[in-house]
Amino acid sequence: MRILVTGGSGFAGQYLLHHLQQVEPEATLIATTINVAPTDPKLASVDWIVVNLLDTKAVFDLINNHKPDVIYHLAALSAPSKALTAAWQTLENNVKMQFNIIHACLDLQLSPQLLLITSGDIYDTRVNTGDPITEVTPLCPNNPYALSKITQDMMGLQYYLSHQLPIIRIRPFNHTGAGQTLGFVAPDFAMQIARIEAGLQEPVIHVGNLEAYRDFSDVRDIVKAYHLISKHGEAGEAYNVASGKATSIAMLLQTLINDTDIDIDVQVDTAKLRPVDTPIIVGSAEKLTKLTGWQPTIDIQTTLHDLLNDCRERVLKTST
Amino acid sequence: MRILVTGGSGFAGQYLLHHLQQVEPEATLIATTINVAPTDPKLASVDWIVVNLLDTKAVFDLINNHKPDVIYHLAALSAPSKALTAAWQTLENNVKMQFNIIHACLDLQLSPQLLLITSGDIYDTRVNTGDPITEVTPLCPNNPYALSKITQDMMGLQYYLSHQLPIIRIRPFNHTGAGQTLGFVAPDFAMQIARIEAGLQEPVIHVGNLEAYRDFSDVRDIVKAYHLISKHGEAGEAYNVASGKATSIAMLLQTLINDTDIDIDVQVDTAKLRPVDTPIIVGSAEKLTKLTGWQPTIDIQTTLHDLLNDCRERVLKTST
Repeated sequence: MRILVTGGSGFAGQYLLHHLQQVEPEATLIATTINVAPTDPKLASVDWIVVNLLDTKAVFDLINNHKPDVIYHLAALSAPSKALTAAWQTLENNVKMQFNIIHACLDLQLSPQLLLITSGDIYDTRVNTGDPITEVTPLCPNNPYALSKITQDMMGLQYYLSHQLPIIRIRPFNHTGAGQTLGFVAPDFAMQIARIEAGLQEPVIHVGNLEAYRDFSDVRDIVKAYHLISKHGEAGEAYNVASGKATSIAMLLQTLINDTDIDIDVQVDTAKLRPVDTPIIVGSAEKLTKLTGWQPTIDIQTTLHDLLNDCRERVLKTST
Repeated sequence: MRILVTGGSGFAGQYLLHHLQQVEPEATLIATTINVAPTDPKLASVDWIVVNLLDTKAVFDLINNHKPDVIYHLAALSAPSKALTAAWQTLENNVKMQFNIIHACLDLQLSPQLLLITSGDIYDTRVNTGDPITEVTPLCPNNPYALSKITQDMMGLQYYLSHQLPIIRIRPFNHTGAGQTLGFVAPDFAMQIARIEAGLQEPVIHVGNLEAYRDFSDVRDIVKAYHLISKHGEAGEAYNVASGKATSIAMLLQTLINDTDIDIDVQVDTAKLRPVDTPIIVGSAEKLTKLTGWQPTIDIQTTLHDLLNDCRERVLKTST
């Protein structure tokens, strides 16, 4: 079996490749990256392809050369906070990369299983019933990132219907862990704490809306779900991947602060408040659990502890 | 009041401009076209701007120079049948033109009422309950055109939410009438009949799926609805414009054939069958009717009669 992971050098991509090495030891793993291949020696067996997925011809060659049986399409501009200032870039990148992959398969008359990673951010959270969000909750984008993910999701459905491509849409809610890039709330907090510990920053953390509740999972649980969906998912369907639990941003910050010995002052910065915000977002992974038995296994304390240790290492590397 | 109509030289655009001349006699009408301005002397009072709305700077200048109070955004690649072979072009064009208009308004800190013409094609018609489609019916694209319209619709919602732009989404179902370009079912049939009458074609009409039922309105009723939505619609909302009646393609063809004295043979051509088709699509305009009292006033027989006469004139013009 030949498995292609786009965005393999990204945060979730690297975890997915590690996991696939464990659970699909016979498979050939091919991964794309826009820059240089990761130096992680554990990923040395992966066949790395440096390619810009916006290049239609290059994507055609990629699919033609490697003829994957399964494609995990993770490559995307993924930070909602950055999407507000790079709206067109986010929309065009995320939509066109996926379009190129789908049309390369069509042009080559190949039908690999195509797992599209969209997002739990695509749902309408304006009417808050208190119930977890299921796959039939209406869609509504709060930012250009969510808009791009709605378009990706709907595009996947369209080509399943119009060309019978075996496409599955996967909608992960927030996930974090060691290695997540800055620009997301958990590593942003953890990195500040690590810098404060190293004496590189005053003991003050500037925050946005601490009252928001979001659905956080460990990235290691998320990539396990991706693989289970590849094994058991139905073409044409969409699956949430979510913890089913609401974690407040305040709790997230407090958990990280509890993990350090330093006294830290928390200050609210209005510039960090997003234009649209929603008090509580919880996803339901019931459909996935019924299908595969998947359950989150790592609690948020462990995830944040690992993230903070990782940030401490990053600070150490930068300052030495 | 300054009213801008994008795609003013298109099929619905010209009807809308005619209607606005009647109902908004004090308004300054500005209209964009990608090619040359229409020669219709009745539209001579319109301020025509030749502009490619894909050109971000040109759209900025357009909005800056004319500072419209109301924008009817009709410009789009609009034939679903063509969208199957020009998928990326359809998606990029329809999404980027609207993005440019919205961001020009944001950059200029202008908040015109922005009426986005999306489509009744955006809805999920796979589960056929027999009930007319309302604005809360889930979305599902059958082709790249519908995908582009879902993205336009969701983009409108996003910028209403994130930047409080007074955006209204209008979702018209099928509409036809004199002047509609070929590539749509009604003018395609009517033009063939006109050519048969003129002795330019054998008395045979090649058709796709005649069993499909669709919701057809007269374009003159549709543009009246657009204006009423501008007057009474609520920012952030979406409104269907539909007849509420199912007309079979077979009935449409028979009505046209009844309008000619020539015996015509009908032959089914499998190449004209679309990859995805749905037996019956009927829209509900109840929300619009409750808001404005709008009702369709022109029956399908009259619409098709006017369309056939128009096609006869087009044939006459081409052959002289």
